[in-house]
Amino acid sequence: MSILVVGSVAFDAIETPSGRRDRCLGGAATYFALAASYFTPVRVIGVVGEDFGAEEEGVLTRRGVDTRGIEHVSGKSFFWSGSYMKNLNEAQTLNTELNVFQSFSPRIPAEYEDSEYLFLANIDPVLQADVRRKMPKVKLACGDTMNYWIKDHRDALKQVLKGLDILLINDTETRMLAGNNNLVQAARGVLGMGPRMLVVKHGEYGATAFYGARTNGLGAKTFRAPALPLEEVVDPTGAGDSFAGGFFGYLASQKELTPGAFRRAMFYGGVMGSFAVERFGTERLQQLSREEIDERFSQFRELTHLD
Amino acid sequence: MSILVVGSVAFDAIETPSGRRDRCLGGAATYFALAASYFTPVRVIGVVGEDFGAEEEGVLTRRGVDTRGIEHVSGKSFFWSGSYMKNLNEAQTLNTELNVFQSFSPRIPAEYEDSEYLFLANIDPVLQADVRRKMPKVKLACGDTMNYWIKDHRDALKQVLKGLDILLINDTETRMLAGNNNLVQAARGVLGMGPRMLVVKHGEYGATAFYGARTNGLGAKTFRAPALPLEEVVDPTGAGDSFAGGFFGYLASQKELTPGAFRRAMFYGGVMGSFAVERFGTERLQQLSREEIDERFSQFRELTHLD
Repeated sequence: MSILVVGSVAFDAIETPSGRRDRCLGGAATYFALAASYFTPVRVIGVVGEDFGAEEEGVLTRRGVDTRGIEHVSGKSFFWSGSYMKNLNEAQTLNTELNVFQSFSPRIPAEYEDSEYLFLANIDPVLQADVRRKMPKVKLACGDTMNYWIKDHRDALKQVLKGLDILLINDTETRMLAGNNNLVQAARGVLGMGPRMLVVKHGEYGATAFYGARTNGLGAKTFRAPALPLEEVVDPTGAGDSFAGGFFGYLASQKELTPGAFRRAMFYGGVMGSFAVERFGTERLQQLSREEIDERFSQFRELTHLD
Repeated sequence: MSILVVGSVAFDAIETPSGRRDRCLGGAATYFALAASYFTPVRVIGVVGEDFGAEEEGVLTRRGVDTRGIEHVSGKSFFWSGSYMKNLNEAQTLNTELNVFQSFSPRIPAEYEDSEYLFLANIDPVLQADVRRKMPKVKLACGDTMNYWIKDHRDALKQVLKGLDILLINDTETRMLAGNNNLVQAARGVLGMGPRMLVVKHGEYGATAFYGARTNGLGAKTFRAPALPLEEVVDPTGAGDSFAGGFFGYLASQKELTPGAFRRAMFYGGVMGSFAVERFGTERLQQLSREEIDERFSQFRELTHLD
């Protein structure tokens, strides 16, 4: 079933110990859409400037992504520049230019209204809540956020959380959102804010799903998926959004949302994240095959399973 | 089969957000021996002072641990005091008094000479190498070390590594030992120094085993075991040594060292680490049952397995 993703489409300048790129196609919605496109049809809502041309659009459409919801306006696209020279696990932001993204107001094309899966990438929670309200019939709504919104826009964010089935954030964001340093206690706090499932991304250590009303100290109602120990991380940008795309894309491809489907989705999230970081920007995500993806899925299983 | 463990037997003073204890039985050999005792017979070599009496000895002997190799000398036992008030994941050492440990020179009782499994806990690598030399017939030798020896006693440590089948250290130590920030590359570097297997402990994120001559970027020859997401960590002291005890104890209990046995051993390591931190000092490790251990093993499986 189709996923509608709302989020940033951007250009990035990136430096890592493996090299640098002055201009990569990026943005959360881009990484998410490419990763999810290997599992299910994807529709994107975003905004770009005049610097986003046929070449960039082709990156998405070649993967079958529906780009009719990407609004083209005059000006420059969202631009981010970051460095991983000090720490491959955490980007140091050198520059952020919101540009056309500053006045982004998501409009939902009529053709998108029947989307059953909705992914709200990390944008202003006021906009996230607005989109969620306009899509009352989605079967499953999943969202992301970041420290900035947690810290300074908590009320708006809390509104969003009430409308989400799944929240997908990292360790630090989970602890910050709940105001609790113990991850299990923090997860329970976040689950009390609305989502039925919380997926906490641990970077190179994988991710943990917490779900159900009761997440007790004995690991009940938790599922932990690994990340692949990688010999070279070329560019960590977009790993989390690619995780989200693999996770939610796989779910949307399933007829039934069984507990097993959620577990496999966690693995596919890790799989897509592991591909994303192998090359700069979205390079690796543009040219995968489902066979490669399933082969890596098998490696994840072998990495973690007793037999 | 019997394990011989050589290491510290100590008293600890510990403060954590859950409370404080002024005097707990501690030391790497103590945690290791208690954790391993649920799987196989354990023999300890260490040294204690006059403050180590029948009560302390009883903690070990009640679990069937053979304490004939613990030397009693005049003076005070090794004493360590640490705080986890700032960070539950990393002890802040407040005080270390080596006391009788300062002149520790391990002597191997004749009754211990037939031990087939040897665990060299974190002590001076000169002593580790000496014990290893005196036990040429062990079937499997496993050892631990720490940043201090890696940094300032590298040559002595390298001698030890040549005699180890398995090295069991944490992320930071692995990177420091290999001089490489990428964990997979660092692991390969460490495997080049002697051990056939490297087990890297990731604290709250579990542990990864690297083995075989080639650990490629695709996760081949790696196995990742989780840690249990815990609602309350009362006292992290000894978690790593308890992991080692569960891991090595389980291996020593097996007739054949199959790949499956190593995988299950990684899980049992995590299981024993997760119990250790539930109470102060060795309290929890003193009163477990094999049923509780195997129940938690099942939880680890459920936490990570697709079906």
